[in-house]
Amino acid sequence: MSELQSRVRDKSLHHLFMKPEDTIKFFKDADNRVMDLGWSGFTPVGYPKVVPIALADYVEKNSLQGKWKFNLFIGASVGSETENRWATLDMIDRRWPYQTGKDIGKGINSGKIRMGDKHLSMFAQDLRYGFYTKDRGGKLDVAIIEATAITENGDIILAGSVGAAPEIIDIADKIIIEINTGMPSLEGMHDIMMTDLPPYRKIIPITDVRQRCGTPFVPTNKSKIVAIVESKLPDNGRALRGTDDVAQAIADNIVDFFSHEVKAGRLPKNLLPLQSGVGSIANAVVGGLTASPFEDLVVFTEVLQDTFLPFLDSGKCKYINCTSLSLSAEGFKEWWEKFEFYKDKVLMRPQQISNNPELIRRLGVIGMNTPLEFDIYAHANSTCAGGTKMLNGIGGSGDFLRNAYLSIMHCPSVRESKTDEFGISGVVTKAPHVDHTEADLDVLVTEQGLADLRGLAPKDRAREIIKKCAHPAYKDYLTDYLERSEKATGYHHEPHILSEAYKMHINLAENGTMRFWNK
Amino acid sequence: MSELQSRVRDKSLHHLFMKPEDTIKFFKDADNRVMDLGWSGFTPVGYPKVVPIALADYVEKNSLQGKWKFNLFIGASVGSETENRWATLDMIDRRWPYQTGKDIGKGINSGKIRMGDKHLSMFAQDLRYGFYTKDRGGKLDVAIIEATAITENGDIILAGSVGAAPEIIDIADKIIIEINTGMPSLEGMHDIMMTDLPPYRKIIPITDVRQRCGTPFVPTNKSKIVAIVESKLPDNGRALRGTDDVAQAIADNIVDFFSHEVKAGRLPKNLLPLQSGVGSIANAVVGGLTASPFEDLVVFTEVLQDTFLPFLDSGKCKYINCTSLSLSAEGFKEWWEKFEFYKDKVLMRPQQISNNPELIRRLGVIGMNTPLEFDIYAHANSTCAGGTKMLNGIGGSGDFLRNAYLSIMHCPSVRESKTDEFGISGVVTKAPHVDHTEADLDVLVTEQGLADLRGLAPKDRAREIIKKCAHPAYKDYLTDYLERSEKATGYHHEPHILSEAYKMHINLAENGTMRFWNK
Repeated sequence: MSELQSRVRDKSLHHLFMKPEDTIKFFKDADNRVMDLGWSGFTPVGYPKVVPIALADYVEKNSLQGKWKFNLFIGASVGSETENRWATLDMIDRRWPYQTGKDIGKGINSGKIRMGDKHLSMFAQDLRYGFYTKDRGGKLDVAIIEATAITENGDIILAGSVGAAPEIIDIADKIIIEINTGMPSLEGMHDIMMTDLPPYRKIIPITDVRQRCGTPFVPTNKSKIVAIVESKLPDNGRALRGTDDVAQAIADNIVDFFSHEVKAGRLPKNLLPLQSGVGSIANAVVGGLTASPFEDLVVFTEVLQDTFLPFLDSGKCKYINCTSLSLSAEGFKEWWEKFEFYKDKVLMRPQQISNNPELIRRLGVIGMNTPLEFDIYAHANSTCAGGTKMLNGIGGSGDFLRNAYLSIMHCPSVRESKTDEFGISGVVTKAPHVDHTEADLDVLVTEQGLADLRGLAPKDRAREIIKKCAHPAYKDYLTDYLERSEKATGYHHEPHILSEAYKMHINLAENGTMRFWNK
Repeated sequence: MSELQSRVRDKSLHHLFMKPEDTIKFFKDADNRVMDLGWSGFTPVGYPKVVPIALADYVEKNSLQGKWKFNLFIGASVGSETENRWATLDMIDRRWPYQTGKDIGKGINSGKIRMGDKHLSMFAQDLRYGFYTKDRGGKLDVAIIEATAITENGDIILAGSVGAAPEIIDIADKIIIEINTGMPSLEGMHDIMMTDLPPYRKIIPITDVRQRCGTPFVPTNKSKIVAIVESKLPDNGRALRGTDDVAQAIADNIVDFFSHEVKAGRLPKNLLPLQSGVGSIANAVVGGLTASPFEDLVVFTEVLQDTFLPFLDSGKCKYINCTSLSLSAEGFKEWWEKFEFYKDKVLMRPQQISNNPELIRRLGVIGMNTPLEFDIYAHANSTCAGGTKMLNGIGGSGDFLRNAYLSIMHCPSVRESKTDEFGISGVVTKAPHVDHTEADLDVLVTEQGLADLRGLAPKDRAREIIKKCAHPAYKDYLTDYLERSEKATGYHHEPHILSEAYKMHINLAENGTMRFWNK
């Protein structure tokens, strides 16, 4: 028996085995209309590979660029060999709700690809509610799902992520499954709770990250499965382990703050479940906690990154909830080498559950994310550079920051632009795009310091943020703007001079640095 | 036995009966420092009256204006005879998280009173967590609570609202109770679920608005009660029943939309639990539903307004959850006349529960709120006129709109300014203060029409909003701004021209109308 045959335990499905190129027939409606597709996958792990690549090859060979178009609904980003290649072949009309890739970014910011971002937990729910595909009764044409096995009953055991796959499988007319035999089965690592339509939605019965409330497989109407394809392609994960001095200083500020909060009695000794975004700062924070005196920590987050592996190794972290094993190739190597150690300490849930306000609020999660910039009143921009250019999407940051026990955002106080080593300030007069508001954020951090904003009114907040977080090159201007805004408005609640609010951003666009005054 | 004696069933507390002026002694620390007070009350019902008035009288008589200062933590707004009078006497330092009143507004927007707004469910929680009174260990000096009775065990039975009273009673060092004998006891109308500190927070076990999960009283450590005062003063509620043609047209658009959603199978025949803000549009929507063919409706909202009484009378509405009976004097008259009919159809919960994301999301609430303005990409401003001047606060709008099944915002397409009948557009190029983001809102409505934004990317959204919602006097300019922004950015994800984004607002401030072009 081949590996593929043994992974698909429901033998009644074996007649559906086919080659990737034989699945092209399920996409022929693209001759006449934009098809609605749902893929498994999440930043970027557990996504289908051989079928999207076969489709791209077909489009390329048959000069169907710009003719065959698809709406892509995927939990979050997927590997660049798939969605980014599709973008270069002009195969994407709408793309929801998060993406990465140079060419897909170019498509979105040139009016070719229509993207929308949405809080990730809400995206999966709204997709299930039929909000994105209203015109066809709330259904998807085809789901393409990476799996590591199929049960005796035809239910799908997913691969390295859950994401929105359960909802996609639920509402798709047809399901194509890629069984990835290039990796062991991940059976038992998933906890799939399906949700109902209101008014019949249930309580999510979790009060501890270790609790299971679902099944290890996605309950699947197997009559919808039209093809099963073998894949051996690895996930094209990003190496996210790196850090730097600035990130380290930010992490130190945060670990100090946690110690202070424990002393003040506002945090238990083992803190509270941690959520951490991606990137060098998140790495440094997790690294800082690994080296800290804190013990018995647990993680309730979206993605398990490389940096969590040494955190688990150290024994400081006891358990991780996530929706995706967002490991690099190197990370996956470690993962599989110590799989017996890791497998009882990690659980993957659907993004509707991993990011659910109900759980984030109940568990008292500590949310930590990196914005592009935040302003002096604590409004943060996580998505649109200069207020206009989409980077990746809001992701789960809103799910966590709106509902966390402590909502923390961290970024460097300054980054270099092409012409100025301090050209881009992390602290601005007014965020040109607001993803998180002053009513959401508790603590802002840069390598300069940490501003604890709890209980501070806007003008007090502004002074604290400028004092603790701004880079010295920007402190004077920000203070000057604040003071002139106060006077200009007669000390309004949240003073601004609207004609000047974006002077830093306008100067960056026109002259390559936010510093428009004499340096 | 006097009415007061019979209302306070725990006789061991009778020795604490005193006159309002005798409670002044509990505030003497104000000689040396700003005291932290918590009051019961919510928009504006169930707040203490005789003690705050006695304190104001004392400050006035003894020329303590600006010398005795207090931080006021109250669930939401309270009657103008209390907080607004305190503002005129310069008795308020910090005020969280929502207020109404001309003089308190003046204080906030002139730098005298430091206000902060916060999502109302989060406010109560964060207050309990000690975030607002960190310097004194998370406690409050004094709670002043309006009640209608005290049980045999010294537990407090509240008056016309719950709000944040449970948390305030929990964390106060001293408690002063006003028993309002001017109204019957409301025993049995409240359902008080106390929450724990994480990691020990519990599931909120509600899957139907009719379910109770708490006690009819606030569990109270009676040793903290230092005074019990009799009050007969009525709540100073606003009459909010009025509506107008514009509001009616908005309501018609919404009722039509609901019918359409029921037909499409995306809403059950009896809709889903309704949340409705305050004001003439909310009145018209509830009026519209009262006159509609929909039946068996339920309401899960913050405040029960006058307009809900005929909704209950009609039999269309079966049950209401709220945190406050925000009735006018006239409304209360009806309420008490038909109390036997209403009392089994209404439940008041703490604002931490009435506005909880867990319940709003689980129950699939339809959230409807009025912003000041929204922009072409669906960012809405609910709080700060011109981006700077605080009106009332974000209230519960964020709690509901972030978590609702359908998030709807509605406002007139245009309002008159002093010099131009169409001087203020409800649809603007860029919201000068963002309280609700594009990732939160599904549907925008004016009297011009309804824009269903689900599944639309920003540039498509902008065209739909301008087409359906903008007033004819603004359509051309908004379209022109959109098209020029697209060209200027090369069709970025969310095009703007930052130097021009606030031209409408700047012109309003300088010239009294948003129309800066030739009319």
